[in-house]
Amino acid sequence: MLRKLMHVGPSMTSYEVQLEGVRENVGFASPEFLEAMRNSLEGLRIVVGADNSYLPFILPGSGTVAMESVTSILPRKGKVLVASNGVFGNRWKPILDAHRMEYEVLEAEPGKSVDPASIKDKLSSGNFASLVFTHVETSTGVRADIEEICRKARPLVDRIVVDGVASVGGETLKVKEWGIDAIITASQKGLASPPGAALLVVAKDSLNNTAGDGYFFDLKNWVEPMNTYLKGENGYLSTEPVGVVMALSHVFNDIRAEGLENTIKRHRVFSEALNEGLEEIGLKVLADREHWSNTVTAVVAERSDDIVKFALSMGIEFATGVHPKLKGKYFRIGHMGYFNYYDVFSALSVIERSALRAGINIKLGSGLTRAQEILIKNGV
Amino acid sequence: MLRKLMHVGPSMTSYEVQLEGVRENVGFASPEFLEAMRNSLEGLRIVVGADNSYLPFILPGSGTVAMESVTSILPRKGKVLVASNGVFGNRWKPILDAHRMEYEVLEAEPGKSVDPASIKDKLSSGNFASLVFTHVETSTGVRADIEEICRKARPLVDRIVVDGVASVGGETLKVKEWGIDAIITASQKGLASPPGAALLVVAKDSLNNTAGDGYFFDLKNWVEPMNTYLKGENGYLSTEPVGVVMALSHVFNDIRAEGLENTIKRHRVFSEALNEGLEEIGLKVLADREHWSNTVTAVVAERSDDIVKFALSMGIEFATGVHPKLKGKYFRIGHMGYFNYYDVFSALSVIERSALRAGINIKLGSGLTRAQEILIKNGV
Amino acid sequence: MLRKLMHVGPSMTSYEVQLEGVRENVGFASPEFLEAMRNSLEGLRIVVGADNSYLPFILPGSGTVAMESVTSILPRKGKVLVASNGVFGNRWKPILDAHRMEYEVLEAEPGKSVDPASIKDKLSSGNFASLVFTHVETSTGVRADIEEICRKARPLVDRIVVDGVASVGGETLKVKEWGIDAIITASQKGLASPPGAALLVVAKDSLNNTAGDGYFFDLKNWVEPMNTYLKGENGYLSTEPVGVVMALSHVFNDIRAEGLENTIKRHRVFSEALNEGLEEIGLKVLADREHWSNTVTAVVAERSDDIVKFALSMGIEFATGVHPKLKGKYFRIGHMGYFNYYDVFSALSVIERSALRAGINIKLGSGLTRAQEILIKNGV
Amino acid sequence: MLRKLMHVGPSMTSYEVQLEGVRENVGFASPEFLEAMRNSLEGLRIVVGADNSYLPFILPGSGTVAMESVTSILPRKGKVLVASNGVFGNRWKPILDAHRMEYEVLEAEPGKSVDPASIKDKLSSGNFASLVFTHVETSTGVRADIEEICRKARPLVDRIVVDGVASVGGETLKVKEWGIDAIITASQKGLASPPGAALLVVAKDSLNNTAGDGYFFDLKNWVEPMNTYLKGENGYLSTEPVGVVMALSHVFNDIRAEGLENTIKRHRVFSEALNEGLEEIGLKVLADREHWSNTVTAVVAERSDDIVKFALSMGIEFATGVHPKLKGKYFRIGHMGYFNYYDVFSALSVIERSALRAGINIKLGSGLTRAQEILIKNGV
Repeated sequence: MLRKLMHVGPSMTSYEVQLEGVRENVGFASPEFLEAMRNSLEGLRIVVGADNSYLPFILPGSGTVAMESVTSILPRKGKVLVASNGVFGNRWKPILDAHRMEYEVLEAEPGKSVDPASIKDKLSSGNFASLVFTHVETSTGVRADIEEICRKARPLVDRIVVDGVASVGGETLKVKEWGIDAIITASQKGLASPPGAALLVVAKDSLNNTAGDGYFFDLKNWVEPMNTYLKGENGYLSTEPVGVVMALSHVFNDIRAEGLENTIKRHRVFSEALNEGLEEIGLKVLADREHWSNTVTAVVAERSDDIVKFALSMGIEFATGVHPKLKGKYFRIGHMGYFNYYDVFSALSVIERSALRAGINIKLGSGLTRAQEILIKNGV
Repeated sequence: MLRKLMHVGPSMTSYEVQLEGVRENVGFASPEFLEAMRNSLEGLRIVVGADNSYLPFILPGSGTVAMESVTSILPRKGKVLVASNGVFGNRWKPILDAHRMEYEVLEAEPGKSVDPASIKDKLSSGNFASLVFTHVETSTGVRADIEEICRKARPLVDRIVVDGVASVGGETLKVKEWGIDAIITASQKGLASPPGAALLVVAKDSLNNTAGDGYFFDLKNWVEPMNTYLKGENGYLSTEPVGVVMALSHVFNDIRAEGLENTIKRHRVFSEALNEGLEEIGLKVLADREHWSNTVTAVVAERSDDIVKFALSMGIEFATGVHPKLKGKYFRIGHMGYFNYYDVFSALSVIERSALRAGINIKLGSGLTRAQEILIKNGV
Repeated sequence: MLRKLMHVGPSMTSYEVQLEGVRENVGFASPEFLEAMRNSLEGLRIVVGADNSYLPFILPGSGTVAMESVTSILPRKGKVLVASNGVFGNRWKPILDAHRMEYEVLEAEPGKSVDPASIKDKLSSGNFASLVFTHVETSTGVRADIEEICRKARPLVDRIVVDGVASVGGETLKVKEWGIDAIITASQKGLASPPGAALLVVAKDSLNNTAGDGYFFDLKNWVEPMNTYLKGENGYLSTEPVGVVMALSHVFNDIRAEGLENTIKRHRVFSEALNEGLEEIGLKVLADREHWSNTVTAVVAERSDDIVKFALSMGIEFATGVHPKLKGKYFRIGHMGYFNYYDVFSALSVIERSALRAGINIKLGSGLTRAQEILIKNGV
Repeated sequence: MLRKLMHVGPSMTSYEVQLEGVRENVGFASPEFLEAMRNSLEGLRIVVGADNSYLPFILPGSGTVAMESVTSILPRKGKVLVASNGVFGNRWKPILDAHRMEYEVLEAEPGKSVDPASIKDKLSSGNFASLVFTHVETSTGVRADIEEICRKARPLVDRIVVDGVASVGGETLKVKEWGIDAIITASQKGLASPPGAALLVVAKDSLNNTAGDGYFFDLKNWVEPMNTYLKGENGYLSTEPVGVVMALSHVFNDIRAEGLENTIKRHRVFSEALNEGLEEIGLKVLADREHWSNTVTAVVAERSDDIVKFALSMGIEFATGVHPKLKGKYFRIGHMGYFNYYDVFSALSVIERSALRAGINIKLGSGLTRAQEILIKNGV
């Protein structure tokens, strides 16, 4: 039986994307790779709403590599405010510790998002140079009020850095308009490619005085290579993950063909259909309704780990919950990348049956029916 | 958007099956191919319920190649009775014509299956040497009463030949027990491999005096090669479709791992779920309920061709109806091969929305709910 | 260790060609397939030098399927002359026998080609309606004097049919100019695709009165489907080998990009380099020098079967000899498709070492050096 | 025309290795990945000659990531001696600078290796805690006297770290026996997988007090995850490059099947054949004969960049020279991974013809002949 991966990353990809990276003769100096690198850098800039005043980066690595390398643009004078909505927001703490940076944390309860007003108050109260926060928190499925946070914070800090690991490619992003200095992501989430690349888009003026805390993680060292790659030439600094970049380039072409707004809308609609379906069944989406994300849903349910197990036995791999305050009390559904309308029904049908099997009293078919209504409402 | 193929063949396959056939260095004399050929021949014999008194054949070609080559075992003395349930049953006519054989046809109305009693009567009435019929008729989704037909016909003819193109791999088959002399199929239907191979399993004693009407299509010429391949040696007669055979071998291994009975049961259950769901919506399964097949469903609906068009725009490719008596009045769903439980819901959700868009008055969600009930009832 | 396939078919292909056929959602009615079918039919017509007065055919099957189906255009009145240069030339005999056709055979000694003058003499002497012959004989590597044969035979017969299984894609062909009525080939030889398709290009006026000896093998039944496919529409008669056709289309695009004349020249040059290298070593090319083909080389050597075995242990798979008069006395090298300049050296280096190991007295390196000279001479 | 990649990395890989990583449903928590991760970690330990007193690491990244992360085990008290044979030896300098570590450099002329005695002298003279050096220098093809260096240095430093980026998988390594504390490499060189993973094997006792200079690059943070992965369980810290690990696992299985000693011997023999062939032609291998490596050859030749260009036009991609003292005066051949005997001849034949085309006076065929002799001498 074919398994379906609805984990939170690597996300649902397509064989065609992966096969794009299968070449016996394409090295890091080959024209095919150089074109894919150029196209991916351009595409990355577009999907986050940046323009030429920003420089895109593709580094060998992962989301964590992107997080740590972006610390090089944070001023060492002045504290960092971390607005954390969960496990991945909190991951900034050991990273900032490791670089001996001072910071404070505003942390939301699971399912909530840190209030923009409280961010403003905190930034006004102390010596903060930077704000970092997570756009979509993978551990809870919460989407932060990114535009409002930026509006309130922009006058109060030198740097605003956004972790877009679980949002880029699935959520609207306008980093230029909103005044974001840097956004990071990885290849294997909303951009539906294999894992192996750390991705960043950084305002050029914030690259002038990097902190230089290390070699690979000092973005200044990557400026020249990336500018060279953007010209379609070989900007070798460290061997890039060639296959991953070939795959990324294919995905950016797919997004261009669909139209970025259509891609985002698609994710918004099927997230709504999935979440409404879940609530109709009687399960509870962990995130507050106004913070539902387009890409990750956390579902509060009795016997959550059993539901994950039953679903896997029916062929669908969900992710267990990882927030320490709610371990075993919820599970997660990744709906990024090539996730599609019919996957909404695959997921809901398996969840209904898994919940029943776990002894939870639900109304069979009600979630599926509700999802249909949402799609019809959205003209899908 | 990823398309889903729910056409009637090539069926829903898997990339892993197809990639099995991608080799740069495997020719028709290579050990990998010879092992795959041996394994596929053995597997083919098993899925139709044959034993060593039958010889399996894999020929370059298609289902039509299998049909025409099997005519070589039909005695030239005595007529052929064709019991036809639709377009593919009727395809025997030009083939038998081309070989200048005498035949009569009993033809059922679309959705019906030729009555076993009428077959018996007909065979008793005249000079018939052979009976040929289609197990599952791809144009109408009708499954013939194979066991009863064989029981009634066996004493009355020399040869019983079954077209299992749309049934092998998805329906229970016991050719030995039921006294069938030959069954044919193709690689791309229930066996979920790429198209390119004609498959047959033939009782050895019916191979002694073949008609010799042509070279390639005279099965006698293939007996020695197939016996050689069964020993794992190179039985070259004409270049076999190497990649298709590699894929087939992978599928037979998957069936062995799942257990043939589980594979068949899976197809039976999701066919029931799909069909019950369709009828609950208010559409009509063309086949009489006692003739629902595990592998193909024909659905009677107003504006059928529009439904197919709408569904395709939502990413699912169904097949239009091809029975001349009902053109434009029904469409077809192939649910063979790697089709799975969640595909039932993908199909039903898209059909519900397509029907609504076509102006048909249906109860949204009712089909999905009914399908859930069927799965629960079957312990899935 | 990676094996290299230098057998006589399937030929050296490329993963990119094969991966072209790997799709999870492309059925026989899908736009991708229909476009590949149209492109392949057009491409096939071009590589044999035909124009719109010819109809191209792609059938599920193999080279043998192509041979047998082309018999349907041979007039039943009048005999067939078979000019045979070896095993595959002789294969016409059982095929013609099976169709109860009268024929005579002119057969050349292994390595020789039937003399055009003797063909002319024979045709003048009797009641012949058709001439069939093999362009490149796979069992001996002999290329027939195709142009001269046609010039001499054209006034004397109604039909000239050429078996181009081992030549199409690697040899110059001008079927229109030379007055050939039909040429056949298969997907897995010079066209470097997976096996699974029979290919033909047939003069339209020879399709008017086919013999109708069977259904699938009566080309008349395929005229309408192929004309439909040529328009880019679904011409379904029997399920085509979808993946093979996708691969073929890729190959035709590659040939178009390289330029057909360059492709042919490449094969001519590396055949010359290979053959000259072999003779320099002291081995003997079976074919007379004026009949060396661009695509297959038969090599006479003591302990030939051991050489094949030694070579295989070093990673290269050659083919053993199959001509009954020379069994065990020669081996064969297929150099079709994606075979390339460097493969010439791979082959020669392994043959030199294999011959030494077999105790044959050769001058090490001399073949490699000679091959270099040939390439230099040809400006490669 | 199919290109052949003989660059210095990604190395010549195989489609089968790459296709191993193509899965639609294998995430970082899937059993297939966990098994591949466990197998790769074990395999990595074996190919470097380590035992259970060492811990293997697979990190998302590249060779540079491996270099920088291993700095975390270098004591901050005491200097680092860098014995550099070229560009990649010198890369330690900006990395150590970035971590504010004190170091001195012994640098060899291009083609030479730093003398073990001078390393001993230098270490004896000052306050050195660590020695780092490159096993095979990718910019010059020089292999260091690893065993002798270790014997001399071991008593004099706390840490010996070896950059095995271009040697692991192609050269004999006995880190335990030779007293090496850590060796690093990357996925895309001798281990023939796609780029995307940094690989390390580190003595466990050197992991107790890491420097903690950063988060991702502090190996201490990866100890627990790697121990978990070694048990076949999910040790998630940062998303691993799933596809690359699947490929690596395939390669380790291939090495196990061939026998590690045979793999190494194969690389040694074809390196000798290639290098001897080059010198016979009249070109000059940059490395001193006693420092020829199994995996990279640098070739001194007039008009080197033209030779690279001519070779590329004949389908083979070599690497240009990058050593600043010799820019444009040499080129490089990577012969790692799935490079094979016949590739030696492909390379030499193209180099001979490219050199001629560049106007260099060579004896055509002499290199090919010499390579044959070397293979014969080695019983290949």
